[in-house]
Amino acid sequence: MEHPMSVGGQPDHSQGIAYIDGKYVPMDEARISILDWGFIRSDCTYDVVHVWKGKFFRLADHIERFQRGLRGLHLSLPLTGDDIAKIVTECVRRSGLRDSYVEMICTRGTPPPGAPRLPTRCVNRFFAFAIPYVWIFTPEEQAKGAKIIVSSVPRIPPDSVDPRIKNFQRGDFTQALFEAEAKGADTAVLLDRDGFVTEGPGFNVFAVVDDQVFTPDRGVLEGITRRSVLELCADEGVPAQVGRLTAEALRNADEVFLASTAGGIMPVIQVDDRILSNGAPGPLSNRLRRRYWERHDEGWHATPIDYA
Amino acid sequence: MEHPMSVGGQPDHSQGIAYIDGKYVPMDEARISILDWGFIRSDCTYDVVHVWKGKFFRLADHIERFQRGLRGLHLSLPLTGDDIAKIVTECVRRSGLRDSYVEMICTRGTPPPGAPRLPTRCVNRFFAFAIPYVWIFTPEEQAKGAKIIVSSVPRIPPDSVDPRIKNFQRGDFTQALFEAEAKGADTAVLLDRDGFVTEGPGFNVFAVVDDQVFTPDRGVLEGITRRSVLELCADEGVPAQVGRLTAEALRNADEVFLASTAGGIMPVIQVDDRILSNGAPGPLSNRLRRRYWERHDEGWHATPIDYA
Repeated sequence: MEHPMSVGGQPDHSQGIAYIDGKYVPMDEARISILDWGFIRSDCTYDVVHVWKGKFFRLADHIERFQRGLRGLHLSLPLTGDDIAKIVTECVRRSGLRDSYVEMICTRGTPPPGAPRLPTRCVNRFFAFAIPYVWIFTPEEQAKGAKIIVSSVPRIPPDSVDPRIKNFQRGDFTQALFEAEAKGADTAVLLDRDGFVTEGPGFNVFAVVDDQVFTPDRGVLEGITRRSVLELCADEGVPAQVGRLTAEALRNADEVFLASTAGGIMPVIQVDDRILSNGAPGPLSNRLRRRYWERHDEGWHATPIDYA
Repeated sequence: MEHPMSVGGQPDHSQGIAYIDGKYVPMDEARISILDWGFIRSDCTYDVVHVWKGKFFRLADHIERFQRGLRGLHLSLPLTGDDIAKIVTECVRRSGLRDSYVEMICTRGTPPPGAPRLPTRCVNRFFAFAIPYVWIFTPEEQAKGAKIIVSSVPRIPPDSVDPRIKNFQRGDFTQALFEAEAKGADTAVLLDRDGFVTEGPGFNVFAVVDDQVFTPDRGVLEGITRRSVLELCADEGVPAQVGRLTAEALRNADEVFLASTAGGIMPVIQVDDRILSNGAPGPLSNRLRRRYWERHDEGWHATPIDYA
């Protein structure tokens, strides 16, 4: 595929700039206290926005979702959305990165010395960083298409941990990744307890059936890239709908693709033992993927960064 | 109650010694990389052992469970159980703490630069620390007894995240703690999806009915303090059994108590609106609690530390 910019291999995580304790530091100094409840209770939320060719993509949407997550977890920060935008912009500017994976995190923190060990007493903390753009699948891998499994591990149910609030509690995903690798697949999608498709580690899932696009409506992160896919479909005149999707429907789809801030729109060529569209990315997946990056070049939802 | 050593208030977390990257450092330098998958995927396991009056309690049992957790998550460390014992002992020795909360953690780490972003490729990491003993409820609070609720938040199911492998994925517990505080309670126990009692944030639950002790048999951490309670019951001639326990049975119990490395045996005086044993810790709870600490003084499962 004619990807606008091919990045070979994986990013070097030693590159990048983080905002920690009010200072901008190189990534190898980006550390958090081992006693922060964001670590020892995974009590935190985050969001990831990307920068492509020097422009944020949907920055306001990501910050808005992050702030919704804070409210959902009773976290609060002495920062407005504008403050957060300034900090993440400054991380990118200082890094000089033109293609970047930019994360904002709020942790519960710790209770002050002597205070009761209750989440309500903790002093919440904010972190951010900009590193080279992260690909779940590189452009080269995307051109070939990914092999996925439907994992035997059920997704953590929404009433235990709400997937709409971005969180790091990924034990189910991690188990599923081991299962996928053991079966020779690249990644996995998980089912809910009623047997419906939810999502995979870091991405939403889409099925194409009879030139229509389907994606799960519940038990999933309401991904910003998912939203972009639905907008692209509308703009391209492709019918799309959110609803319930069974594993069987996924296996029998004409095409399947994944969507994530970390890689965009990623075609799938195999679900379990079922090979899709003769083992190559399907035409609609390829078209949406091409338009996704072309629209970036056209300034779609873009916030340019002043690197001067 | 005549607690052997009353520690007022909460520990100061700025005290203590950690083992990070092969060095022993003060707790305020105990930090982990913000990119470690132990943080950003909560992909890690841990264990906590306590030191009381200069002696570890059940050190070998805790290390054995920790190693079982490593195997369960496909984590591996270039450390034997003896190596781990030496490191945590050195943390305590350097801290000088006679009563200590000692944690060992293994995180997934990160993949080396250029390697695929798969859990199998990550370089796993080991951390440990010794801080002043942590009380979920202080001896003063234990003497009064705790108020708990049965949370409306269901426990994360074992097939999504196995509670027998100690983990930090505590979003369900955190929600339940907010619910408890809003209802004027001190903490919460969670039910599984079939309505049976599981556990609470950091502790196992016990009910006393007709002089018999009951505790859940599944969907829970197999706590070392839980094991100690069952041993104490056997030694004291108190019938005890593991099995299923409904919320209704818990509310109607003669006594309820909680068990954790962080506080020992902690009496409960209220479950939801139901006041137990006239609002004071019950006689069997008090007896087991007293014997738990007396047995510590008698050298039960003790490994003395040479502080010289």
